Amino acid sequence: MALGTGALTACRAKAPAPLPSLLGAPVSRYGERSPFVHAVRQPAEQSRTPEQASSLTPLAETYGIITPSSLHFERHHSGVPRIDPAEHRLMIHGLVDRPLIFTMDELKRLPSVSRIHFLECSGNSGNGWRPTPRPTVQGTHGLTSCSEWTGVALSLVLEEAGVQKNASWILAEGADPAKMTRSVPLAKAMDDAMLAYAQNGEPLRPEQGFPLRLFLPGWEGNANVKWLRRLKVVDQPYMTREETSKYTDLMPDGKARQFTLMMDAKSVVTHPSGGQRLSGPGFHEITGIAWTGRGSVASVEISTDGGATWKPAALQQPVLPRAHTRFRFAWEWDGSEATIASRVTDDTGYRQPTREELVAVRGVNSNYHNNMIQAWKVKADGTVEYAVL
Amino acid sequence: MALGTGALTACRAKAPAPLPSLLGAPVSRYGERSPFVHAVRQPAEQSRTPEQASSLTPLAETYGIITPSSLHFERHHSGVPRIDPAEHRLMIHGLVDRPLIFTMDELKRLPSVSRIHFLECSGNSGNGWRPTPRPTVQGTHGLTSCSEWTGVALSLVLEEAGVQKNASWILAEGADPAKMTRSVPLAKAMDDAMLAYAQNGEPLRPEQGFPLRLFLPGWEGNANVKWLRRLKVVDQPYMTREETSKYTDLMPDGKARQFTLMMDAKSVVTHPSGGQRLSGPGFHEITGIAWTGRGSVASVEISTDGGATWKPAALQQPVLPRAHTRFRFAWEWDGSEATIASRVTDDTGYRQPTREELVAVRGVNSNYHNNMIQAWKVKADGTVEYAVL
Repeated sequence: MALGTGALTACRAKAPAPLPSLLGAPVSRYGERSPFVHAVRQPAEQSRTPEQASSLTPLAETYGIITPSSLHFERHHSGVPRIDPAEHRLMIHGLVDRPLIFTMDELKRLPSVSRIHFLECSGNSGNGWRPTPRPTVQGTHGLTSCSEWTGVALSLVLEEAGVQKNASWILAEGADPAKMTRSVPLAKAMDDAMLAYAQNGEPLRPEQGFPLRLFLPGWEGNANVKWLRRLKVVDQPYMTREETSKYTDLMPDGKARQFTLMMDAKSVVTHPSGGQRLSGPGFHEITGIAWTGRGSVASVEISTDGGATWKPAALQQPVLPRAHTRFRFAWEWDGSEATIASRVTDDTGYRQPTREELVAVRGVNSNYHNNMIQAWKVKADGTVEYAVL
Repeated sequence: MALGTGALTACRAKAPAPLPSLLGAPVSRYGERSPFVHAVRQPAEQSRTPEQASSLTPLAETYGIITPSSLHFERHHSGVPRIDPAEHRLMIHGLVDRPLIFTMDELKRLPSVSRIHFLECSGNSGNGWRPTPRPTVQGTHGLTSCSEWTGVALSLVLEEAGVQKNASWILAEGADPAKMTRSVPLAKAMDDAMLAYAQNGEPLRPEQGFPLRLFLPGWEGNANVKWLRRLKVVDQPYMTREETSKYTDLMPDGKARQFTLMMDAKSVVTHPSGGQRLSGPGFHEITGIAWTGRGSVASVEISTDGGATWKPAALQQPVLPRAHTRFRFAWEWDGSEATIASRVTDDTGYRQPTREELVAVRGVNSNYHNNMIQAWKVKADGTVEYAVL
């Protein structure tokens, strides 16, 4: 690929890199990032108590599809418990022939599986319902991250416990002081659900549920119960607080949708994005991430004219099911104001809606599951601002 | 999959997990691992100066295929330089029509690419040449790691510089005090080589070359020059110290192979491995990693009888070219002494050799590029020791 008139005409450095004259730092047992790197999670604006709060991934400063574990978004309802894995247990009971209690060592002894999947809070990009400008993509979309998760297939453990014929749901309970509890359909539990104990090659981080979490690929973050201590096999959903007063979607007619667990297809441009500044006209790569809880990303399109026209973006391989997919688009910016946006289509044929299309169905009463197309306005001076198509 | 008589009969916990009564930790800007997790890199035994040294990845305590960046192996010849990315430059000169100097911002403005690849020091598992028992897989094989790398295709930059017709190699120089310098065939530079500035979703770690390294997928670690400051396009290899007195392979006849840059297919069992102890007879998962610089892993076989018979292991998808591939094998241990090993075959048809097969060709004078089958002896008491087939 030749760039033509674009980026390289901008090269302006005149001297090669300086060379150090002193020995550098010795080898170390546990590496740290460079002191010149400063990206951090951002506590959500609505946090009034830091234990019942969330913090968002700096998407504009991440690369590829793997989120560094230190920057994975977090959402807690009573803070991050400090759990000694030697003391932790997972109990499986209810409508099973053989109730079981596992130590972590026993779980880790079982056949394991690793998969790269996104995890997204259903409140992510919820500012789009009653459009509230937010200055950065971290603020609008930072409640999604993507990791390689390792653990045990939940189906394996449930089969060994012997699920009884009248069972249809499981109740998952966390070992945090809030006892986070969610009902999950048995069909998902027997499909691709995991008991995850590792993330990006190391044990789960405390904020992601150390030493054990439920992982439901493609489903809303809250149902992926962290610090998992108990699974009760039951014959109905248990209507916990987190699936009645919270994590439901209020429709225009005043009724609420419940158990909207699948995360719909979504995409967002991370560069250029709010708060960044383009150095001048010429070549710029538009890049971002797309994902869908329904399967795999089939295509991403980019508009640089406020949605009037759309052109295909390149998808970085491998495109993995229920994982972030990195897209890229070569853009020659002419220096005039431009509104850019991405939209994804997944392999079920579902296409990410505009705000107008989404609101026509869902109204504006919701707080969760907003997957509308999010735009950014590039102004003539190169600064980038929040915009709605 | 049902486990049958295996692992679950071992469940022995009697009480569910305790529940905390106090609020946990608040959200944070940059996450840390649990205080109960202790895996660290291990400085190589041969280190006498900590700046001219290496430290090894704790492979037995990692999961899946991604290596946590804090635990990625490191190898330095004059320590880790502290580089301000605002001051760093990449110079491209020599047999080019348009010499160029890039700032990091200019490089990051170019079209980018992300790929998951292993990186292995050619000295990895070198103890196999004159078999020296090492107690753990970290000690034998910890000089390989796997990350998602993001950067610019080197071919793109070279094409813009205009490589002249008589060019055939490039000389890559690092900004460490040792000025690590290696010659790389132009064909590789124009194929899949990258100028990498990010690793696992964040900027490169200092030990892996922050802010910029050369990345040559599948080629020996040393040639992937870190802290990259200069690429000179030339018409011959430059016979630097690192490709004459070091990083060559002394053959039985006293001649040395030079520029043996491709990393051959290798695999190793990480569990059970040296220093671990199996809790007792019954089900155990044998797992490990396989990789090849030539392409992709095609199959991995496991022996539990010292190499007399081999059975296929399951490969965790996705199997990516020039990346670690996680394999798994269900093993019912009868409690008697057993010697276990893995061997990989790659998609070129090349199969990992036994020590005998390797030595028949290479002799025992080498220090680098040992990819022989590595075994572990599981003793009747469950302890695991180094073994050679």
